[in-house]
Amino acid sequence: QINAQRLWDSLMETAKIGGTPKGGVSRLTLTDTDRQVRDWLKSECESLGCTVTVDDVGNMFAVRPGRRSDLPPIAIGSHLDTQPTGGKFDGILGVLGGLEVLKTLQGTGYETNAPLMLVNWTNEEGSRFAPAMLGSGVYAGVFDRTYADSREDRQGVTFGEAIEAIGYRGDAKAGSIKFGAMFELHIEQGPILEQEGKVIGIVQGVQGMRWYEVNLTGREAHTGSTPMHLRRDALVGAARLLDRIEAIALEHGPSAVGSVGLIEVQPNSRNVVPGHVFFTVDFRHPEDAVLDLMEQKFFAAVEEAARKGDLGVERRKIWESPAVKFDAGCIAAVRRAAEATGCTARDIISGAGHDAAYTARVAPTTMIFVPCVGGLSHNEEESTSFEECAAGVQVLLGAVLDYDRH
Amino acid sequence: QINAQRLWDSLMETAKIGGTPKGGVSRLTLTDTDRQVRDWLKSECESLGCTVTVDDVGNMFAVRPGRRSDLPPIAIGSHLDTQPTGGKFDGILGVLGGLEVLKTLQGTGYETNAPLMLVNWTNEEGSRFAPAMLGSGVYAGVFDRTYADSREDRQGVTFGEAIEAIGYRGDAKAGSIKFGAMFELHIEQGPILEQEGKVIGIVQGVQGMRWYEVNLTGREAHTGSTPMHLRRDALVGAARLLDRIEAIALEHGPSAVGSVGLIEVQPNSRNVVPGHVFFTVDFRHPEDAVLDLMEQKFFAAVEEAARKGDLGVERRKIWESPAVKFDAGCIAAVRRAAEATGCTARDIISGAGHDAAYTARVAPTTMIFVPCVGGLSHNEEESTSFEECAAGVQVLLGAVLDYDRH
Ligand SMILES: NC(=O)NCCC(=O)O
Ligand SMILES: NC(=O)NCCC(=O)O
Repeated sequence: QINAQRLWDSLMETAKIGGTPKGGVSRLTLTDTDRQVRDWLKSECESLGCTVTVDDVGNMFAVRPGRRSDLPPIAIGSHLDTQPTGGKFDGILGVLGGLEVLKTLQGTGYETNAPLMLVNWTNEEGSRFAPAMLGSGVYAGVFDRTYADSREDRQGVTFGEAIEAIGYRGDAKAGSIKFGAMFELHIEQGPILEQEGKVIGIVQGVQGMRWYEVNLTGREAHTGSTPMHLRRDALVGAARLLDRIEAIALEHGPSAVGSVGLIEVQPNSRNVVPGHVFFTVDFRHPEDAVLDLMEQKFFAAVEEAARKGDLGVERRKIWESPAVKFDAGCIAAVRRAAEATGCTARDIISGAGHDAAYTARVAPTTMIFVPCVGGLSHNEEESTSFEECAAGVQVLLGAVLDYDRH
Repeated sequence: QINAQRLWDSLMETAKIGGTPKGGVSRLTLTDTDRQVRDWLKSECESLGCTVTVDDVGNMFAVRPGRRSDLPPIAIGSHLDTQPTGGKFDGILGVLGGLEVLKTLQGTGYETNAPLMLVNWTNEEGSRFAPAMLGSGVYAGVFDRTYADSREDRQGVTFGEAIEAIGYRGDAKAGSIKFGAMFELHIEQGPILEQEGKVIGIVQGVQGMRWYEVNLTGREAHTGSTPMHLRRDALVGAARLLDRIEAIALEHGPSAVGSVGLIEVQPNSRNVVPGHVFFTVDFRHPEDAVLDLMEQKFFAAVEEAARKGDLGVERRKIWESPAVKFDAGCIAAVRRAAEATGCTARDIISGAGHDAAYTARVAPTTMIFVPCVGGLSHNEEESTSFEECAAGVQVLLGAVLDYDRH
């Protein structure tokens, strides 16, 4: 039985690191607040007697030995970085829930067969450095380390510079610290569990997602003295594309989503026709074939907007994470653990990306979801109840011990 | 006869202050580069024996005495501030052309009847602090000083703080330094003179212009797990409005323009549905009645976009500069001066706002335009030829002496 109050206290305590006035958390990856929460985690794990290792992209691994040293560890965890205006649970529940599992076992002196390994993945959010799930991606061999190091934030600071700056470049080569399975507890970040009154989501997989970057180049000109027909307005072109991106998502049924989250205009002055616009695009769907169609339409829309607006255009797909199916054995362990707690549960597909989507490439993996109020995430108001957090961690513990027994 | 080479050299020399790699100038008002060019101007004027006075919003006035001290001065000048990615001529030609007029008269020992007064107006561009023409506006009594002081740039620095920081808060109360007439030389910033092969524009007035600010508030949410129909996407709402703003301009004939130059998105993260968008709107037309219609349509569009997108909305007109007609006597002096030089000329209405639009409220005023390549301005490539700059200053000198004789 996990200690629900201890879990909750740890969530509230770490939420102060980067805490915002609106009750959220602003803890972008590899910033000083990220360093603080990493230091905190390291010291908590060490005080449990765990050995903490850091790999060369900053992923943190804390090991609690098992009875048998010939078995690979069972990994649990998620990420402690947040969006610029993020919540107190996204990712954090998975790491602190994993820590609570370790504390519970330590408290009762329970010995697992396999070692347990708590993991904190670097740059899961992808907000400061695109793409998302970069630390677990390098771990799983999807990206190489030089690629990760070269990624730049919007101020031009690289991932490599940032990781050195906070002192979290470890010696271990990413991917060299192996585990035999991975269980990630996370809030759903969507509305399904709440709408159906279920407490546990037994996650079957993750939908496909693709990220793009678009640069439109027109010509800076005076807003007062430049007739409309002589303009090459990059922002007018971008607005047409934003309309199309929404329309493309709507054309592909209720499971398709399309979003522009980030846009930057140059020179961004009230009386200058915008000469340059940069924006990002995020398309998702459970079927990769549908994403192919959405992508085709999007590329065609970019060409058309460029032609109509007489704009220079550069567009790139910077990331593609195909739809993922999780491991049947891990899923079965979660299902049995959920049944054992008596929680209401349902199977679910993740709309958000998760480190588990990448670890699934190298080890049997699955996830456990708990609801969040209104399905709201990536928002300072993100909220999951005391009881739901506790239920998720209880199922996590149960699933790990079930898996360890088989 | 003015010294065309000396004029050109001064344009090229000051263009280094805030000069950009692309050959433009980035000299936002009340920044350190603005201080440098102000210091330069002050020392040039003083070395001509002129007295330089600064008023309490930073407008600079350099006086060359005339034969009769009972006559009010004739003012010439414009502004030395630029857009973030501005050119070497916008405003600057008017100030350095005025300086060249003073040097020419000094060189020949010519004594005018009235004193001559060279003026450098503060924050004409309106890019760092909105609205534009703020220094001349306070001078003319359109705004009061406390309003000017309270204006904030996008970093939250106020005009008052910025002027103190560069040490250009003068003792004279804005508006207390009177003149009897004002002639402003400027590049056209539009395509008309070039297209018709004319060298001099005899400016009849300035079209009406209105600036607005819009805040749209939706709800931050996860781009992957939030279905399209549950979103309140502030950027999707803004895109609809950008489309409408262009359409409204196109609906009101070739003289109407509508632009969004500045947009800011919160939290501006690739995988967060935008919760907040701020943008600015600039509408212009030679007839204020047409601007009224455009405004009505725009306000209706804002309501509709807010309703459709379930967005909170705040919209404000932050500036209205009605259409201006310049003084017939000043215009006649320019026409005679243009004829005397033999330059090709045509009457023209200014599409851009100018300090002359505000000084026209307190003294007989007009402007002289010269062409710029492709009508391009508010662009680092802005360009006017050696000969055209010289012709403009020659007409400025002629007009001032003509006006002084009458
Ligand atoms: N879980 C989560 O919010 N991940 C961030 C990556 C994404 O799905 O956009
Ligand atoms: N002349 C000029 O560019 N003025 C700036 C104010 C405006 O017209 O937008």
